[in-house]
Amino acid sequence: MATPSPTASIAEERKNPGFPIREMTHFLDGGEQNTLLLEKIMMEFERDPTFKTIDTHEQDLATIRRRTMEKIAKMGYYLTAESVHAFKKRMNVLTLFDPASWTRIGVHLGLFLNSVQGQATPEQLSYWVQKGAVTLNGVIGCFAMTELGHGSNVAGLETTATYDEASQEFIIHTPTLTGKIFLILATKWWIGGAAQTCTHSAVYAQLYVKGKCYGVKTFVVQIRDTKTFDLMPGVVIGDCGPKMGRHGIDNGWIQFTHVRIPRSHMLMKHSKVLANGTVVEPPLAQLAFGALINGRVTMVTDSGNIAKKALTIAIRYAAIRRQFGAKPGQPETKLLDYVIHQHRLMPLLAQAFAMHFTGIEVSSMFESLMERMDRLRPGDKEINDVLNSLKELHGTSAGIKAFCTWNALNTIDQCRQALGGHGYSAYAGLASLYNDFAVQCTWEGDNTILTLQAGRYLIGCYRESLNGIKQHGGVAYLNSLSTLLTAKCPAKTSEEILDLDIIGTAYWVVAANVVKKAGEDFQACLKKGLKEEEAYEECSQARLFAAKIHSFGYLYHRFKDGVSKAPANLKPILVTLCQLYGLYNISELSGPFLQYEYFSPKQLDWVKAKVSELCRAVRKEAIPITDSFNFSDFVINSPLGRYDGNMYEAYFNTITAAYKPATKAPYFQTHVYPILNRVQTEEEPLELEDEE
Amino acid sequence: MATPSPTASIAEERKNPGFPIREMTHFLDGGEQNTLLLEKIMMEFERDPTFKTIDTHEQDLATIRRRTMEKIAKMGYYLTAESVHAFKKRMNVLTLFDPASWTRIGVHLGLFLNSVQGQATPEQLSYWVQKGAVTLNGVIGCFAMTELGHGSNVAGLETTATYDEASQEFIIHTPTLTGKIFLILATKWWIGGAAQTCTHSAVYAQLYVKGKCYGVKTFVVQIRDTKTFDLMPGVVIGDCGPKMGRHGIDNGWIQFTHVRIPRSHMLMKHSKVLANGTVVEPPLAQLAFGALINGRVTMVTDSGNIAKKALTIAIRYAAIRRQFGAKPGQPETKLLDYVIHQHRLMPLLAQAFAMHFTGIEVSSMFESLMERMDRLRPGDKEINDVLNSLKELHGTSAGIKAFCTWNALNTIDQCRQALGGHGYSAYAGLASLYNDFAVQCTWEGDNTILTLQAGRYLIGCYRESLNGIKQHGGVAYLNSLSTLLTAKCPAKTSEEILDLDIIGTAYWVVAANVVKKAGEDFQACLKKGLKEEEAYEECSQARLFAAKIHSFGYLYHRFKDGVSKAPANLKPILVTLCQLYGLYNISELSGPFLQYEYFSPKQLDWVKAKVSELCRAVRKEAIPITDSFNFSDFVINSPLGRYDGNMYEAYFNTITAAYKPATKAPYFQTHVYPILNRVQTEEEPLELEDEE
Repeated sequence: MATPSPTASIAEERKNPGFPIREMTHFLDGGEQNTLLLEKIMMEFERDPTFKTIDTHEQDLATIRRRTMEKIAKMGYYLTAESVHAFKKRMNVLTLFDPASWTRIGVHLGLFLNSVQGQATPEQLSYWVQKGAVTLNGVIGCFAMTELGHGSNVAGLETTATYDEASQEFIIHTPTLTGKIFLILATKWWIGGAAQTCTHSAVYAQLYVKGKCYGVKTFVVQIRDTKTFDLMPGVVIGDCGPKMGRHGIDNGWIQFTHVRIPRSHMLMKHSKVLANGTVVEPPLAQLAFGALINGRVTMVTDSGNIAKKALTIAIRYAAIRRQFGAKPGQPETKLLDYVIHQHRLMPLLAQAFAMHFTGIEVSSMFESLMERMDRLRPGDKEINDVLNSLKELHGTSAGIKAFCTWNALNTIDQCRQALGGHGYSAYAGLASLYNDFAVQCTWEGDNTILTLQAGRYLIGCYRESLNGIKQHGGVAYLNSLSTLLTAKCPAKTSEEILDLDIIGTAYWVVAANVVKKAGEDFQACLKKGLKEEEAYEECSQARLFAAKIHSFGYLYHRFKDGVSKAPANLKPILVTLCQLYGLYNISELSGPFLQYEYFSPKQLDWVKAKVSELCRAVRKEAIPITDSFNFSDFVINSPLGRYDGNMYEAYFNTITAAYKPATKAPYFQTHVYPILNRVQTEEEPLELEDEE
Repeated sequence: MATPSPTASIAEERKNPGFPIREMTHFLDGGEQNTLLLEKIMMEFERDPTFKTIDTHEQDLATIRRRTMEKIAKMGYYLTAESVHAFKKRMNVLTLFDPASWTRIGVHLGLFLNSVQGQATPEQLSYWVQKGAVTLNGVIGCFAMTELGHGSNVAGLETTATYDEASQEFIIHTPTLTGKIFLILATKWWIGGAAQTCTHSAVYAQLYVKGKCYGVKTFVVQIRDTKTFDLMPGVVIGDCGPKMGRHGIDNGWIQFTHVRIPRSHMLMKHSKVLANGTVVEPPLAQLAFGALINGRVTMVTDSGNIAKKALTIAIRYAAIRRQFGAKPGQPETKLLDYVIHQHRLMPLLAQAFAMHFTGIEVSSMFESLMERMDRLRPGDKEINDVLNSLKELHGTSAGIKAFCTWNALNTIDQCRQALGGHGYSAYAGLASLYNDFAVQCTWEGDNTILTLQAGRYLIGCYRESLNGIKQHGGVAYLNSLSTLLTAKCPAKTSEEILDLDIIGTAYWVVAANVVKKAGEDFQACLKKGLKEEEAYEECSQARLFAAKIHSFGYLYHRFKDGVSKAPANLKPILVTLCQLYGLYNISELSGPFLQYEYFSPKQLDWVKAKVSELCRAVRKEAIPITDSFNFSDFVINSPLGRYDGNMYEAYFNTITAAYKPATKAPYFQTHVYPILNRVQTEEEPLELEDEE
């Protein structure tokens, strides 16, 4: 039997899908209307030469930067022309194939504008809207929080905003604390859009009034003339230069030297500085930065989507690529049919669904919380409730953001490796996906620091529950500590281990145990006489581990909830994926599941055996599943991940179009010829006659 | 107290090293003479403008390619001027700061020349040496093994070499099997040096004589004229284009259309084709590709070195960078003093030592084996012994190559993330280190396939040991199956768990169990009636897991052996590192250590507690340890990893030298101004009067 062609190889995978693909797409997109909208947007991008992607691998930094700006201009059109809902979807699509352009708009629309919306008074907001801040028309903003010397520790920022009562102005200044020797540490650093794009900046600086420091507040500072683009007096900006990825976004550094801004340019929804220098502190300081959680929430959804894209490429490749295993007269075996390849990719596919459903959950938590915060007025009875929800979202999103971005980064790398040598080609699309995505593990909260915050939140919840305070949402399992801590898996056969509730309890049991361990370690530190901060520091490793198990369990339970809401004809495959997600992580993290004796060693062997079976079951539907993600070839942007499977030809044609065959290196004569044709002359050595 | 300056921050780490740093350097380098040689080489590179690295982040692909060729010319000088020993060391240094140049020479000196040396008859070898193959003078070779459609499965290559008896020539041809539709799959692909550098190629092709296929043999084919660099008739070559990393190496593709070469250009040390078309098969076919194991062995050493480099950057940064934790009047806390940061980096530091000692071990195994193979003549009694050693080296190096390259890649990424946002800067040096290194997990044996080979080897050893055949070297523990399988950790206190023998036994016990599990799974498959290959396939996951535990144990034992040979004044710190390496992996892979009940849950808690203590102990010596690696600032090539600690200034100066501050984007007028200053004209709409 002749080897089927690549297109035939993938076509046979689509013959008898085990579920209705189009319905899955609608379900994942949140309804048919959304699917149609996404398809419209993908087509608009694909047909518009501004968004061309085929030549990105051969461009230099300067070209990429310019072309990114062209895209932003085009996005500006949509920003004014379409609904907020549609534009959000457009941004979700853009980030899939051009994350740098997404970032370059995002620093304005997300970070700058979120700061203004979340921290401005109504009059201030309307002022900046009128100036054009929403439509990038007259104002393009950046977000100047981080400094060369300070990233995660926002409270430690060094830039100062000193109120000058006489002129009613703030003086924004980058200090050079000679006592500290580091003259440049307070320089604003990594500011996206600062180097070549922005006119204004939301500057986070220490407020000083009458010699007293009131902590970090936000100020809108104009950094460039909008007509000439000359830097404003006292402002110096430079380019941070090449990065690992996201080359299209122009990160820059900013130094302020006694730059004066009107008092009204401090965002005063929360803290206020009155004309006479009286500082009015906000009743609810905790609410000031709530809107910035948005970034983390978005990254959970983004992690799911990027994972889906990487998996679409790797799984389509694996359905076509054949290697080894030929029996006489038979074609070689598809990668997808190898046990080991199924173990590499199928659990990641299941994980992408877990991130998908978790993204939906935390997005809706965020949106409802923002609505409640907007309605909130000082003195409202609801305040404590809102603060609790904010605390919960903060604690939950910290861990989820960290583990989802790590998961997605790992997925990309596993997919790249699963393409063998071709994964190393820029054209496969996975190298740039990795390099672009990697920063998500660091920005808007370094993942490790976020996991520690999540762990601290869990210790707090644990201690509350010991004191009889009822826990809600994702930590509600802590209300059942007494039964959970010593629970054993009731499964008596390997089949019973597939029960979604049994798997769900496994996560709660082990999470309860590791959270308890962290809480007890913390208590022990306090007993030894450590202060609270020291005690938290001392049990960092236990906090991180608690956050890890809790977060994986949280993802599992959101997946399980999502499955329960699915249409009946989609449920079987979703249940299989959910089982695989749950059991795979148990087998990978088997240590604590055995240590706390939820599973016996024998049951763990069942878990492992079931993982293999489930991988095989998911493999059967792998191509229909990736099809249901419904990414167009343009969004996939990899000849090796094409829908029609004609990958080798597309790959070869793309490369030979960019690099004409039989071309001699321009430096052949100067640099290759001389070494290749050098003559070793055997010179008569100059002999010295040594006199005695 | 004022914050100490960066240089003071690192200086205080060097005040009281717990071991003699210079002696550690000599020990790691294998003697003072080697240290002095390496220092001489580092200085020569640093002072030679050809090898300048400071501007690499701003260069385009064409420039990088040309500059790489300049470096190769300079390396050609050293190749002829210095001893083999010195040149090998020079290559080891080159790969640390310019892996692409290393590769571009390596494909000639390593792959091409190893093929010729390992597979040519003495007369053939002397012919190619006289042509200039050793000194890159008249011959620059590439290694044309992989094809677009075939990577790991060498036996499945499609390029043909058909013997034409009439002319006594081979016809090298890239077939286009229309039955298979894929017209381009047999194209030689990823051939390093083919696109712009090479004149000759070692082509791996299916030998056909009188219509019969004899499998893959090696042929030297001239691909370009050495004077004009024109392609030889029938040869077409193109550039594979941009990759994830190693931009300096010009990977290309080659198609052969009925290219004729003399019979003498088939390498005939093993298989021969006589003038009349008689094919003489080798008595020991297994020996033909033995020399190619060299690449894997080199990668183990390289993994250790690259990990040391990445860790030097991350640990120096962490000794200077301060964040959070300021007590009133006190400086912020160094990253290195955080428990979590110690957990992130110290185990990786210990792992770098494990890879170091393992690299020494497998290199010496390889060298002694090659010597024995060179001495071997058909009929020698030693043959079976040599074949056994080859099998052992093959099985061991497969797993070790895979896990060491994965370890190193992970180390680089962890180090990058440990630098926070600055890790994302190209100037930090870790992004390119990652992108350059990533291919090591794929080339010369895809890691996943190698782990499966290692697992198959382990199953074979296990079955031999059941049959009473004694096992040697790294698998000798299989001789003690009966006692190991049920052994329990004898430690009665947490102190006893630090015993290097107890830790060592832990790995043997768990490895014995997982190898047994894989072996039993395999047997069960055979009993079910599966053929051998099917049975191996079926238990792939068990093979991979066996290879993983075995390899981690192998690394631990090589580390332990290395420590036992160390001078007395270096032993204490090396023992601490070895304990950390052993216990850290046990705590991370705790599942099987609990499942096979070597450790009780309580003992596992001791393991975890000891890991924290050991991290703290290693942290104290972290800067002296990285200093002992003795990389010059030039080799480190990261302003954030400088020896003197003056990192912020160096970082700022490097960037501002490349990107002048206050520069307007060249596209401001054309692309920024129009969007920023667009006027929304409110046009009078054209009203239609609908007639009824």
